[in-house]
Amino acid sequence: MFFAILKIMDEFDLHNLEPSRLLSMVVEAPYLKLLFGTEKVTEESLRELKALAKKAKVMEQMRAMQTGEIVNTSEKRPALHTAMRDVFGETPLAKEASALAKKELEKLKAFLPQLEGVTDLVQIGIGGSSLGPDAIYQGLKAFAKPGKRVHFLSNVDPDDAAAVFRDLDLKKTVVVVVSKSGTTLETLTNEAIAREKFKKAGLPPKIIAVTGEKSPMDDPKNYLASFYIWDFVGGRYSVTSMVGAVALSFALGFDQFMDFLKGAHEMDRHALLDHNMPLIGALLGIFNRNHLGCETAAVIPYAQGLHRFPAHLQQLDMESNGKQVTKKGDFVTGETGPIVWGEPGTNGQHSFFQLLHQGTSIVPLEFIGFKKSQYGDDLNVQGTTSQQKLLSNLIAQMIALATGQENSDPNKVFLGNRPSRLILGERLDPATLGALLAYFEHKVAFQGFMWGINSFDQEGVQLGKKLALKVIDQFAGKKVDFPLSSALLKILS
Amino acid sequence: MFFAILKIMDEFDLHNLEPSRLLSMVVEAPYLKLLFGTEKVTEESLRELKALAKKAKVMEQMRAMQTGEIVNTSEKRPALHTAMRDVFGETPLAKEASALAKKELEKLKAFLPQLEGVTDLVQIGIGGSSLGPDAIYQGLKAFAKPGKRVHFLSNVDPDDAAAVFRDLDLKKTVVVVVSKSGTTLETLTNEAIAREKFKKAGLPPKIIAVTGEKSPMDDPKNYLASFYIWDFVGGRYSVTSMVGAVALSFALGFDQFMDFLKGAHEMDRHALLDHNMPLIGALLGIFNRNHLGCETAAVIPYAQGLHRFPAHLQQLDMESNGKQVTKKGDFVTGETGPIVWGEPGTNGQHSFFQLLHQGTSIVPLEFIGFKKSQYGDDLNVQGTTSQQKLLSNLIAQMIALATGQENSDPNKVFLGNRPSRLILGERLDPATLGALLAYFEHKVAFQGFMWGINSFDQEGVQLGKKLALKVIDQFAGKKVDFPLSSALLKILS
Repeated sequence: MFFAILKIMDEFDLHNLEPSRLLSMVVEAPYLKLLFGTEKVTEESLRELKALAKKAKVMEQMRAMQTGEIVNTSEKRPALHTAMRDVFGETPLAKEASALAKKELEKLKAFLPQLEGVTDLVQIGIGGSSLGPDAIYQGLKAFAKPGKRVHFLSNVDPDDAAAVFRDLDLKKTVVVVVSKSGTTLETLTNEAIAREKFKKAGLPPKIIAVTGEKSPMDDPKNYLASFYIWDFVGGRYSVTSMVGAVALSFALGFDQFMDFLKGAHEMDRHALLDHNMPLIGALLGIFNRNHLGCETAAVIPYAQGLHRFPAHLQQLDMESNGKQVTKKGDFVTGETGPIVWGEPGTNGQHSFFQLLHQGTSIVPLEFIGFKKSQYGDDLNVQGTTSQQKLLSNLIAQMIALATGQENSDPNKVFLGNRPSRLILGERLDPATLGALLAYFEHKVAFQGFMWGINSFDQEGVQLGKKLALKVIDQFAGKKVDFPLSSALLKILS
Repeated sequence: MFFAILKIMDEFDLHNLEPSRLLSMVVEAPYLKLLFGTEKVTEESLRELKALAKKAKVMEQMRAMQTGEIVNTSEKRPALHTAMRDVFGETPLAKEASALAKKELEKLKAFLPQLEGVTDLVQIGIGGSSLGPDAIYQGLKAFAKPGKRVHFLSNVDPDDAAAVFRDLDLKKTVVVVVSKSGTTLETLTNEAIAREKFKKAGLPPKIIAVTGEKSPMDDPKNYLASFYIWDFVGGRYSVTSMVGAVALSFALGFDQFMDFLKGAHEMDRHALLDHNMPLIGALLGIFNRNHLGCETAAVIPYAQGLHRFPAHLQQLDMESNGKQVTKKGDFVTGETGPIVWGEPGTNGQHSFFQLLHQGTSIVPLEFIGFKKSQYGDDLNVQGTTSQQKLLSNLIAQMIALATGQENSDPNKVFLGNRPSRLILGERLDPATLGALLAYFEHKVAFQGFMWGINSFDQEGVQLGKKLALKVIDQFAGKKVDFPLSSALLKILS
């Protein structure tokens, strides 16, 4: 029924785009605005989408999530990433979790002076222990303290470790190992490599653990310190927990890290209002996915600092909503989460934008732009600054995709009518990036609520893990009955 | 007719995968093999695909391309990237172009000693002048001379330049500006910024031009040297020309750069054989796109060094084949180039692989793997090396995607029957990466030949450029009649 209603909704022909539509289709949130006049929803289809949202009780579910009810039904857990930043003095929505978060923040604040002489921090972790923190670090590098660098080591590929450690002075390096269970294959292997590097350099290993309380890694004999994470914060939602906190406050300082949390927290509260920006973003995405039938969604930041942000969103969105089964255990009857991808503009314009304008697939775009640059280091060339040229390109793309161009030469025809939207902020600073992160988290959650799926588990990664262990056993010379793998091994070795 | 034949082809059910299929569906090329037993083609559909290829005269077109006939029909030019590496003494297929390429290589070899004291090279260029060279530099960093670093500056975003120049010692820095016409907005703006930085530091600007002969940038008064490129080498195919040569031979040394060219050249010659690996790759892609209807294709290198390779392939593939009009000027009646995306494994396994296994969209995967690591710096943990763990994961994923898993808990069901293939090499070294680059170039070209489109122009980027200039004029305070832009500007400023 849900998918059937979506299929027959009204759609706007973007060839008829008018300034008044651009000016009226705007929703505001803390630090950010969403401009969606260049999407294909009409006032009517938006009303219908809101009715579907109401029927799915998305606001009740958002509140349930933030107050700590069990929304991760398959694993029977709450999903309390919002509690990690609900630490600003008002009454927190999930008291216990926020108290735990606050305690770790205080521990961290007291610990940071111990890292004074350290120049380089290597974070070992994979998935959410790497993608989110890396995206935020890159996004806020402009605000980092001079001489403080963070490196991320994730891959079990030995070349990743070799490349990271090649140029480091281990005397001034600290390693942070992130694993909730203390059992992730890639992470343990890379930790062993790090320990070996310290040993070879004749140095004591300087390693911090971010892990579950009482996990094998929660051990003062082996680690400088342990900071705790809990199973009610999923990996891809964990950047505002200690998973991101240690590395980011090392680089940015504790106060700027708290600004980042503040921005996220304000967006969390905003997402509880009936008319909120993440919900509108979610509805637009559902319209594009289930009405227009678009298989992908691209995120194009016109901000070089966000160059790794799409990689984080890939995990956030595709791991949360790349699901085929509803919470009730039925196979879904329509499409769920899209394939998310993207690179910064203007770079993309000189790359894949050809397909966006003239290809046979429609790709809905989520642009991200800021009025001001981060460094404020700009140059006026031929009457405009680089920042103005950047924004000019962003505006031009939104209009070009929407309106297209007629031409007697078929090669110069742009069919247009291609949807996009813009998330706009003043400047990419810690609080704004916190709000941007939380916007996407809640957009994804709202979409999951509407599709009736569980956005907080990841059963789909298990089979590969299980089979990999069998192949590892084959490599180790154990006798394993796995003929398909044996055939591939014959070619590979 | 083409698309109708494709729709009704035979397909293999991967639940029935047997070791014998894995062992027999392999095609070999210089430096690389393609394993495609985990794709859904049957012997019969492959035969039909080959018949379609024959009908489209793809081998004649490949030869026409490499010998310098006009294959870029809209711009009335040859596409002679292969001539850039056809410099190894045999009779070149396109004599004049290869002679030009050889002359530039000799100029470069003679020039390189002038860069002896230089530690950092900043390449300013966008699109093909950045993505390809950056991908190859990252891919071969393990082989770079100690203390030589390359940085890429593309974006008109002022923060890109600020971040790149922030940590450089300009006394030991050389800048390479790449623009064929000498008129690219982003590149000229960033060159102006670079000159300003040298000036502020009280240093003469040390800048090399890579440009067309007699372009405004071909000027010894303003540049240390000029290296030439020609309009018969398109941006996205230009990494083996001077566009990549200057930066890569600075970092790797001239001889290793020549090894890279050699690998590409051997794949070029291989692509002229009737049974060749790029053609098989192309046919598999067309089957997935036009028979299975998959809108995207992911490239997942199990090699951390290739972390920027998918970004290069995005441009190569989507800018070449994201087209809606045939060479004859008709609108196509089926789907052309897919959306290309990807991140390295095993990282992706902890991110978007959830959707690949259990999402509602099928994503065909092109895995890339190597038997040996680049650095050879590895550690045996619990009986296996990291390289073995890496390959184990790769094998496990191919099998898991193909065969899936039944389960009484619907959340643990993996439907399987999801196609993938593997490009396998011995080690990611210069020659192998050259071959890999050329494999993808020719795969894309063969697909373009089959779809009947022009893979060598990019008319789709023009409209955005044109509109951006109008918005820039508005920012500069000129009177411009562009109401849609005025509306967006009102919100943005």
